Amino acid sequence: MTTLKNDRFLRALLRQPVDVTPVWMMRQAGRYLPEYRATRAKAGSFMNLCTSPEFACEVTLQPLDRYPLDAAILFSDILTIPDAMGLGLYFSEGEGPRFKNPLRTAQDVAKLGVPDPETELRYVMDAVRLIRKELAGRVPLIGFAGSPWTLATYMVEGSSSKEYSIIKKMMFDEPKVMHQLLDKVAQSVTSYLNAQIVAGAQAVMIFDTWGGILTPRDYKLFSLAYMDRIVKGLQRENEGRKVPVILFTKGGGAWLKDMAATGCDALGVDWTLNLGDARKQVGDSVALQGNMDPSVLYASPARIREEVATILASYGKGNGHVFNLGHGIHQHVVPEHAGAFIEAVHELSKPYHAA
Amino acid sequence: MTTLKNDRFLRALLRQPVDVTPVWMMRQAGRYLPEYRATRAKAGSFMNLCTSPEFACEVTLQPLDRYPLDAAILFSDILTIPDAMGLGLYFSEGEGPRFKNPLRTAQDVAKLGVPDPETELRYVMDAVRLIRKELAGRVPLIGFAGSPWTLATYMVEGSSSKEYSIIKKMMFDEPKVMHQLLDKVAQSVTSYLNAQIVAGAQAVMIFDTWGGILTPRDYKLFSLAYMDRIVKGLQRENEGRKVPVILFTKGGGAWLKDMAATGCDALGVDWTLNLGDARKQVGDSVALQGNMDPSVLYASPARIREEVATILASYGKGNGHVFNLGHGIHQHVVPEHAGAFIEAVHELSKPYHAA
Repeated sequence: MTTLKNDRFLRALLRQPVDVTPVWMMRQAGRYLPEYRATRAKAGSFMNLCTSPEFACEVTLQPLDRYPLDAAILFSDILTIPDAMGLGLYFSEGEGPRFKNPLRTAQDVAKLGVPDPETELRYVMDAVRLIRKELAGRVPLIGFAGSPWTLATYMVEGSSSKEYSIIKKMMFDEPKVMHQLLDKVAQSVTSYLNAQIVAGAQAVMIFDTWGGILTPRDYKLFSLAYMDRIVKGLQRENEGRKVPVILFTKGGGAWLKDMAATGCDALGVDWTLNLGDARKQVGDSVALQGNMDPSVLYASPARIREEVATILASYGKGNGHVFNLGHGIHQHVVPEHAGAFIEAVHELSKPYHAA
Repeated sequence: MTTLKNDRFLRALLRQPVDVTPVWMMRQAGRYLPEYRATRAKAGSFMNLCTSPEFACEVTLQPLDRYPLDAAILFSDILTIPDAMGLGLYFSEGEGPRFKNPLRTAQDVAKLGVPDPETELRYVMDAVRLIRKELAGRVPLIGFAGSPWTLATYMVEGSSSKEYSIIKKMMFDEPKVMHQLLDKVAQSVTSYLNAQIVAGAQAVMIFDTWGGILTPRDYKLFSLAYMDRIVKGLQRENEGRKVPVILFTKGGGAWLKDMAATGCDALGVDWTLNLGDARKQVGDSVALQGNMDPSVLYASPARIREEVATILASYGKGNGHVFNLGHGIHQHVVPEHAGAFIEAVHELSKPYHAA
């Protein structure tokens, strides 16, 4: 394996000293980039883009060729796992992801198997291997998966949802079936992330996009409990280095202490929380990744710079901060604004890391 | 004026003793009721339903004829104010509210006037008067308005939004224009709510549906500051009785103390917060209204009852709780389930109010 030339990101996740605050952007390989749109057109469909290791590698590297980012993130979709479980993922234009065979009954759930990542999700592992080769040690590669609760919302609803009426009915009326489903998904996510780590992912992140729609009690029972199992089941070291684990529950600002108690290394934080307050909540237990409102990138570069300065000051001196947006970069952001953001983080963070 | 036969709701908002916990449901006059759908069909369009005092009165009373609710809420829409300001509200089937003339420039904002409620929004005041007459003192009538920030999101975006890119760009790049807009809307909301109070609204609620998409700093600057002005500008007494004011920011669970500091009487609480924890946060400063996950109504009546019991226990003994859902009732809820919910609140809350 080639040596890692820039390990700021991994060091910050482990709360080790760095020269400047590392930065990456959720959904950095995405529609706001013209080069992404060109590859997407070449691929024909979003599914083709995801399932071809070559296309996935190409779009993963695009933002790195444009910006001095401190990490690459595997281009893929969180719904690859349910697809491999036989639900039949497809994307309808303008309406987002859909499943041909959503889960509605105890029988549907009982029939589900746990996919073998190196066979049924081999295209993802091949993409990880290819990206690592092409990265040639420039920056670390992040692997990822959706949280069991978040995957289950799509698997039961059959698509994106506004009210989550079907899965919530299942959760309230048939908690045993719900737990059976979440257990199978948690097993699948664990082996999927472990396979990504073995294939070369140098950090992993679990996206809990929909944990925030639950009451505190239901969040703990139906979302956090399963992320906890995953964290405890992950291979935490590879190639002689620690493999940090990041948990991110959108809208989960009130539950950071509970999330840190899983033993993960870092937490993603959205922008509805002051980062300094988040740091006070978790103390030295975990690093924090975040938390600029992605809409700030619609503002002028001068305003973006101001906001970066505010967030750096909010976190303050010391280790353990990875700069990021509080959610994925929006598709209509001008690429130059993303550049101004990344430059501002590196430049303005120096004083916070001076001896 | 007729005497109020059931004043539990008003008493609970003022943290006075009651026999059982009062209950109402946000959006209780709505699509889940077949009688509402019948009136809606008769009215032809949603706008006709809103602008006809007779239809508005009819649908306001429908849930009260079906359930032993402790309050009526004026049937109207939060966007009546921007419509009266000349933005041209219309509803496109399946896509929600839209404005013909969204605000995009400093000039657009400069041109805006503050509508006179008794002329430009007279249909709302006529509805309030008619409903009060038809209620004949059964339960109190709640008036309401959207928060300035929430109204501004629709006024600037021109419709519902996912990313709020246009208004956020304005907020970040042109804060003066944003404040000018919010100032005019706050003046409009204040005189609109005062007119509702004079016309007969016995409590008023401000719905801040989109305050929760802001950072804590921006929430305080662009949403809470204007709700604060409104609270301080309201007529707090009428017909020899206090007129309680309720503030509700969806997703604002972390900011309850700041909201209470406006001097309002009560706070709406969504379900992402434990009600007992919310009570600890605010102490004796305000009453709390909430906070069952509206999706619980999809579950069985037995499960609904269980959840009601949990929330009552979470709030505990003592005054100051109005039971409600944490958000509007969903349109696909079976009416019988709403009935089971209301019955459970009255029945199970007795021990919490025993001497």
